[in-house]
Amino acid sequence: MPSYKAPVDDVLFLLNDVFHIERYGNLPGFADTNPETLEAILGEGAKLCEQVIAPLNRTGDIEGCKRHPDGTVTTPKGFKDAYKQLSEGGWVGLACDLDYGGQGLPQTLTWIMNEFLTSSNMAFSMYSGLSQGAYLALRIHGSDEQKKMYLPKIASGIWSATMNLTEPHCGTDLGLLRTKAVPQADGSYKISGTKIFISGGEHDLTENIIHLVIARIEGAPAGTKGISLFVVPKFLHDENGRIGARNGVTCGSIEEKMGIHGNSTCVMNYDNATGWLVGEPHRGLAAMFTMMNEARIGVGIQGVALSEVAYQNAANYARERLQGRSLTGPKFPDKPADPIIVHPDVRRVLLSMRAFNEAARALVIWIALQADTYHRSGDAQAKQTADDLMGLLTPIIKGVLTDIGFANTVLAQQMFGGHGYIAEHGMEQFVRDARISMIYEGANGIQALDLVGRKLGRDGGRAMMNFLSETTAFMKANAADEAMAPYIQPMETALAHLQKATVWLMQNGPKQPDNAGAASYDYMHLFGLVALGYMWAQIAKAALAAKSKSNGAAARMDAKLAAGKFFMERMLPETVAHLARIESGSRTLMELPAEAF
Amino acid sequence: MPSYKAPVDDVLFLLNDVFHIERYGNLPGFADTNPETLEAILGEGAKLCEQVIAPLNRTGDIEGCKRHPDGTVTTPKGFKDAYKQLSEGGWVGLACDLDYGGQGLPQTLTWIMNEFLTSSNMAFSMYSGLSQGAYLALRIHGSDEQKKMYLPKIASGIWSATMNLTEPHCGTDLGLLRTKAVPQADGSYKISGTKIFISGGEHDLTENIIHLVIARIEGAPAGTKGISLFVVPKFLHDENGRIGARNGVTCGSIEEKMGIHGNSTCVMNYDNATGWLVGEPHRGLAAMFTMMNEARIGVGIQGVALSEVAYQNAANYARERLQGRSLTGPKFPDKPADPIIVHPDVRRVLLSMRAFNEAARALVIWIALQADTYHRSGDAQAKQTADDLMGLLTPIIKGVLTDIGFANTVLAQQMFGGHGYIAEHGMEQFVRDARISMIYEGANGIQALDLVGRKLGRDGGRAMMNFLSETTAFMKANAADEAMAPYIQPMETALAHLQKATVWLMQNGPKQPDNAGAASYDYMHLFGLVALGYMWAQIAKAALAAKSKSNGAAARMDAKLAAGKFFMERMLPETVAHLARIESGSRTLMELPAEAF
Repeated sequence: MPSYKAPVDDVLFLLNDVFHIERYGNLPGFADTNPETLEAILGEGAKLCEQVIAPLNRTGDIEGCKRHPDGTVTTPKGFKDAYKQLSEGGWVGLACDLDYGGQGLPQTLTWIMNEFLTSSNMAFSMYSGLSQGAYLALRIHGSDEQKKMYLPKIASGIWSATMNLTEPHCGTDLGLLRTKAVPQADGSYKISGTKIFISGGEHDLTENIIHLVIARIEGAPAGTKGISLFVVPKFLHDENGRIGARNGVTCGSIEEKMGIHGNSTCVMNYDNATGWLVGEPHRGLAAMFTMMNEARIGVGIQGVALSEVAYQNAANYARERLQGRSLTGPKFPDKPADPIIVHPDVRRVLLSMRAFNEAARALVIWIALQADTYHRSGDAQAKQTADDLMGLLTPIIKGVLTDIGFANTVLAQQMFGGHGYIAEHGMEQFVRDARISMIYEGANGIQALDLVGRKLGRDGGRAMMNFLSETTAFMKANAADEAMAPYIQPMETALAHLQKATVWLMQNGPKQPDNAGAASYDYMHLFGLVALGYMWAQIAKAALAAKSKSNGAAARMDAKLAAGKFFMERMLPETVAHLARIESGSRTLMELPAEAF
Repeated sequence: MPSYKAPVDDVLFLLNDVFHIERYGNLPGFADTNPETLEAILGEGAKLCEQVIAPLNRTGDIEGCKRHPDGTVTTPKGFKDAYKQLSEGGWVGLACDLDYGGQGLPQTLTWIMNEFLTSSNMAFSMYSGLSQGAYLALRIHGSDEQKKMYLPKIASGIWSATMNLTEPHCGTDLGLLRTKAVPQADGSYKISGTKIFISGGEHDLTENIIHLVIARIEGAPAGTKGISLFVVPKFLHDENGRIGARNGVTCGSIEEKMGIHGNSTCVMNYDNATGWLVGEPHRGLAAMFTMMNEARIGVGIQGVALSEVAYQNAANYARERLQGRSLTGPKFPDKPADPIIVHPDVRRVLLSMRAFNEAARALVIWIALQADTYHRSGDAQAKQTADDLMGLLTPIIKGVLTDIGFANTVLAQQMFGGHGYIAEHGMEQFVRDARISMIYEGANGIQALDLVGRKLGRDGGRAMMNFLSETTAFMKANAADEAMAPYIQPMETALAHLQKATVWLMQNGPKQPDNAGAASYDYMHLFGLVALGYMWAQIAKAALAAKSKSNGAAARMDAKLAAGKFFMERMLPETVAHLARIESGSRTLMELPAEAF
């Protein structure tokens, strides 16, 4: 069975040494984020993940969820108790408002905990994962009454939440949706329709499930401008939250899928279910996007999380598996063979995972701090800058981190040879589980279009210009530092590629939108590499500083400096290939008729 | 359920127009390979695959193989009848000698049929797939008695064969093996030990199963120099091949694995099983490598085959799935949405699969013709050149074609969005099935080491020099042809990268072997891109000629020319990134101690 150790030390290094969390001390909830408290909180979270939740990962995969004839669903053995520990420990409401029963701590800590939870057991983590987005959506768009009713229930974990968008004939193109809402005299609506791929749509972990559902009010305009958001609880309830009758929403079936078997992915049938409008009529998509954006970051975190746990197991295996000899002569002549970690190609694979994991985690934490700034700061300028960065980098975090995260689970599986293909070692489960992250909450191709088509040009390209000037300034400021040279020089080349690609898009996209579409995926990955490289440059700077301060940290910091160098030498050079593909334009793509494919 | 149509037209184009199979007419078995006969043979094979074998793919995945308490194994419903049709149709022995009951046709046709079989049903195809390698190993290394006994049984498909190498503690490093062979007075041996990951180790499709097993004769030297090859039949038999008592070899269990559930992957227990030596004592590894090299090409074909069937289904889906609108305005304004094939990024994904499939298939056929030349030609020089090319390109075919083939199944799955993650559409099965091809018959990292450490330098680098001079000559010969410019110019750049990387290896590998190891994987992929590019250049030349000859072929040829251009513009530029990684050397990889990972 795979093992897992939450990377608490790495996270603390990022929070304290790289991002200087103390600088955010004026934000609500950040007052207590001194290194000792952070270590205590994350240490507790790590313990719960490692000891309680991770051991249920493989058994949950084998057992899966069971739907009973009455539509109820049983989660795998142990999930219910683990969920109880999670919610009673205050982890679901870690970043929720004190007023609504949360702990009021930074959102950043929730996202870090989400990584630990997902590494431990992705299927399990999804039951509470969507509650955070639903909390935010209701907090921003809900009425006072809705907030008072639902937020404490969600924050405490007593009730969970789902996101209901997709229908059999529409996923990306929500304008096609058919679920309808009929207004009732009492101000409620009757919702009818079928939603598919609903994660945690039905389960036995919580007293009630709050479905956030998009539907079209009778007579509403066609397309996305006629979509409204509704809250539809599994059980109806009185104004004190006391559970009443079952509402007209049931799980019709559980999907047979490639992975995340421990999570119930449901077909949900709405049959005159009672729901209440959230926010204004026909403005539901904007409200749902509050939840969706949160969920996209959450999915990006899944990419990092599975890459991390897969890496840990691959590294352990490479240290233990005796097979063959080093190319430079036996390293352990007393053993029947050397451990495979003596081989440069094995190290190449391990380092490529490691060089991703640390930078990707940094990227998530950087953007998490922007989220906290946006939601909590009183400074309008700071809020805007934070929101810009978050918007710009959300498709990168979702699209790039899940693409590479998945690829890394495949690499880690490969380390095990034939044993990686066998279920008992758990490596193939990581691959199957990670695979969904590239698909849901907007397939990665959609992320690339979101980046190129919407985020890049928004507000005259303000967010992108800020990103480029911040990164360029960092490289300039550290250009004279010889120890930083291995990180600065490659980044300057990569930044030039990103700038060139951006100019190409500006010149070729508007007059021929297919050029933007043709470039989008490579542009997203080129941007992603630069963003990860920027993280490595900052990590290297902090590691050099930490190394000079303390001898004790030297070995750990040396490992970071080596992984960063690996990134610069072996991963960043990919930017030149992305640029070549971008500049090749769309003609070859578009010239064939559809039937020629 | 996924659909499949065998690419008979593409294969015929490659055989007739690109590789001019008529030029091989003097080889035994090639006399009848005129276009009409080829079309008839391949058409029959295609029908069997499409109508009988493909429909069993998903049901075989769901049902899997069942081991009974007595150690026997039942294959999924329908497999037995389909196997009967396959063997009775003469497909197993298609390229086997007429003297031994085969059809004496080119090996090339068997490899093509293997692609069709694998696209239809990879798990099923493996039962007969290993028989071909066993046939070859016994034909080359077996005694006359063994040949007379086993070859007709294998060629007819009445008996099948397996390859028994791996043990729990040794896969790549066969020198560690523990299975022992004790000589008996009658010239036979008693074999005892445990072998794992044995594909088709036990099943109900054939009357008998011939296990080719490597073991150490008591008192033999340690390491790989003490390994001998034995033939161990499941049922003992008399000299007429009449089945007798069960031999001491049983299936201990079937592995629970990620995919290819329809194939029984067995733990085989040898308990004083009676076996007979094949070839000379202690020279078993060389004999086994005859089978292994054949199997490696077979696995490379699996990469192409799954990429092909995944592509076909993705292209169909992209033409049918209505979702969103073209970036340049609605293309089907009368429909609720445009089919997703209007999007450049969807076409990018489809073309990247297509641009691989056609070139990879060409590469397999090119090397298949070398195999036929090597095994059948009477011309020593032609044999040597063919053997050189085959040896050099075997790791490319195994390593590169399975890496890209697997990646393409992931791309095809992605086209389906959430539906791709659901089992009923069959796309996730392609991913799970394809995954093993990167692992077995020598994990792809081992292929890269084989290429760089053995194949490249063998005979003073003769094979590589021949490859470079042949490709360079082709580019020169076509440099003046304007219509060929899109294919020649990018190839010249890529060839320069390959030459530079080769020189770098020659200069940096011998003095520091870790440099060779560190470069191996990127070198393999750089080489693979050049080899695929060379195929595209040849396909383009043939397509231009075919187009000028016949108007009827124009649309098909235009599609090839576009896919080839896509390859040159969007896939080949990756060579520059591979070169950069190769030239970064091994220092960053090797500097960390093992415990720092």
